[in-house]
Amino acid sequence: MYYIGIDIGGTNIKAGIVTEDAKVLIKDKIRTGAERDYTEIVADMAELCNRLVEQSNLSWDDIDSVGIGSPGIVDGKNGVIVFAGNLSFRNAPIGAELKKHINKPVYMGNDANCAAVGEYIAAGKKDMECYVFVTLGTGVGGGAVINGKLFAGFNNVGMEVGHIAMHPGGSRVCTCGRRGCWETYASVTALVAATKKSIAAHPDGMMAKLAEENGKVDGRIAFNAARAGDEEGMAVVNTWIENVAGGIVDLVNLLAPEQLSIGGAISNEGDFLLEPIRKIVKRDQFARNVPETEVVIASLGNDAGLIGAALLGKAQ
Amino acid sequence: MYYIGIDIGGTNIKAGIVTEDAKVLIKDKIRTGAERDYTEIVADMAELCNRLVEQSNLSWDDIDSVGIGSPGIVDGKNGVIVFAGNLSFRNAPIGAELKKHINKPVYMGNDANCAAVGEYIAAGKKDMECYVFVTLGTGVGGGAVINGKLFAGFNNVGMEVGHIAMHPGGSRVCTCGRRGCWETYASVTALVAATKKSIAAHPDGMMAKLAEENGKVDGRIAFNAARAGDEEGMAVVNTWIENVAGGIVDLVNLLAPEQLSIGGAISNEGDFLLEPIRKIVKRDQFARNVPETEVVIASLGNDAGLIGAALLGKAQ
Repeated sequence: MYYIGIDIGGTNIKAGIVTEDAKVLIKDKIRTGAERDYTEIVADMAELCNRLVEQSNLSWDDIDSVGIGSPGIVDGKNGVIVFAGNLSFRNAPIGAELKKHINKPVYMGNDANCAAVGEYIAAGKKDMECYVFVTLGTGVGGGAVINGKLFAGFNNVGMEVGHIAMHPGGSRVCTCGRRGCWETYASVTALVAATKKSIAAHPDGMMAKLAEENGKVDGRIAFNAARAGDEEGMAVVNTWIENVAGGIVDLVNLLAPEQLSIGGAISNEGDFLLEPIRKIVKRDQFARNVPETEVVIASLGNDAGLIGAALLGKAQ
Repeated sequence: MYYIGIDIGGTNIKAGIVTEDAKVLIKDKIRTGAERDYTEIVADMAELCNRLVEQSNLSWDDIDSVGIGSPGIVDGKNGVIVFAGNLSFRNAPIGAELKKHINKPVYMGNDANCAAVGEYIAAGKKDMECYVFVTLGTGVGGGAVINGKLFAGFNNVGMEVGHIAMHPGGSRVCTCGRRGCWETYASVTALVAATKKSIAAHPDGMMAKLAEENGKVDGRIAFNAARAGDEEGMAVVNTWIENVAGGIVDLVNLLAPEQLSIGGAISNEGDFLLEPIRKIVKRDQFARNVPETEVVIASLGNDAGLIGAALLGKAQ
């Protein structure tokens, strides 16, 4: 069987056909046109799905189900996008609407939660009691699969991992309104801010040069400088990694997952990111003399959300 | 049917017969004699159970199962106490040993997790997707029931709620070795330390007087002073409650439970404790425009662990 995943974004809607073992057979995208009524958007989504099935020489009989990932708050049980900031969806019954076009089971979830499901299935360890995914990007997101089921809390806003407090009441105000959320310390946004601050303090340093060559400051500048032995680069990276690891220790102490994987583009830094995190987790975790959480880099990259949406039905 | 719960402590072993709806029919206790071999301790536990069944005019046919709660790390699946600091148990197969004496299903769990199960069942909302229990005492413990099952992580050390970081790397060193754990801010131990500090700074203040009358400084001194309008008392209580609430917001943002209940003797402070916590949760939680977690005071008091141990079989 094959599985169709749809990943709704503010600009594009991506869709793809995914195999049982989390590989993308074919994928394509269309413009979202987020200002339109949801019924029009869903009609386009259905057309995209039909096109993909045709182009891959499959029939709808080969398709098990369709899964939809969306930013914001998604009520998977009722197939409703409750709220999605940049999409103007408010309590939109996307699931029921799509079923008017496609006679297949439709599953829905928050995009970070979908990515968690994708990475969980790609990890290939189906008997995990608990699996946790963390994605480091503009913010910090994540998801969990507990006893084989996507866990999103009773109101579908659980696993807001970015919004556990690192320094509650501290000086960093989070987009959620709270002070000191982990996201304000561990996002790539925070890494870039720290890099910029260091560049301002050391305008002739290596990071300043790398940023000039690169045309902008992104998350890689500090890592590239640190790899080259630059002291300021190492300072920025070490502080950021300590903050990333601090929240991961919290998740390990709370959820004790068999595996916790780290995604987002910054996870391309690989062992240079992973090894110090592992050391800090080892140092700070509560677990002693028991099997320990395996912390790894996530494997699916950009397609995690699409693949996870497709395979949502496997984590219900 | 009736359910036997056994609550192992360093000094005493308590046991009781519990009804379907979380009421204690009869209970008693014996000395633990923690220095002895586990086989001897289990033999005494079995004898205590037999005595309770006899005294309550029940027969073993009326007993559904026996549950055991223990401090430390408990492998419920295999019926083993992996580690319990003040009990000298190391990988002790207590479950199998008890079954040599009592031919009933035996369930086992960590004591805080048992209390969570007890409070979950006492809450009487069996369809909760997620329920979280937090107990404030010498440390901060807790547990969760997810989709009707006790959740303890894959290695049985999950839900160490006291060991999420409030100020990681901060000046307060936790018993677990990490710096800045929530427990170092939100335990009654932390409340008492803050009370003592304030008394030292204000030796003629109300808290100093209350402590002298009381013969010692405990968690109630600051609350009693605060209730009477004492400024220093209010300052101590407010800071402590802000710290307690901060961790509760973390749990709400991560686990989005239908209900989170607060136990431990200090929860007798009731609304004076609960109302400010609710306000802070309301202010700081990520959830907006969705159903919100209900934060309540736990209902079972000291018997939570015993009752939860008895009813462990209902949360497997």
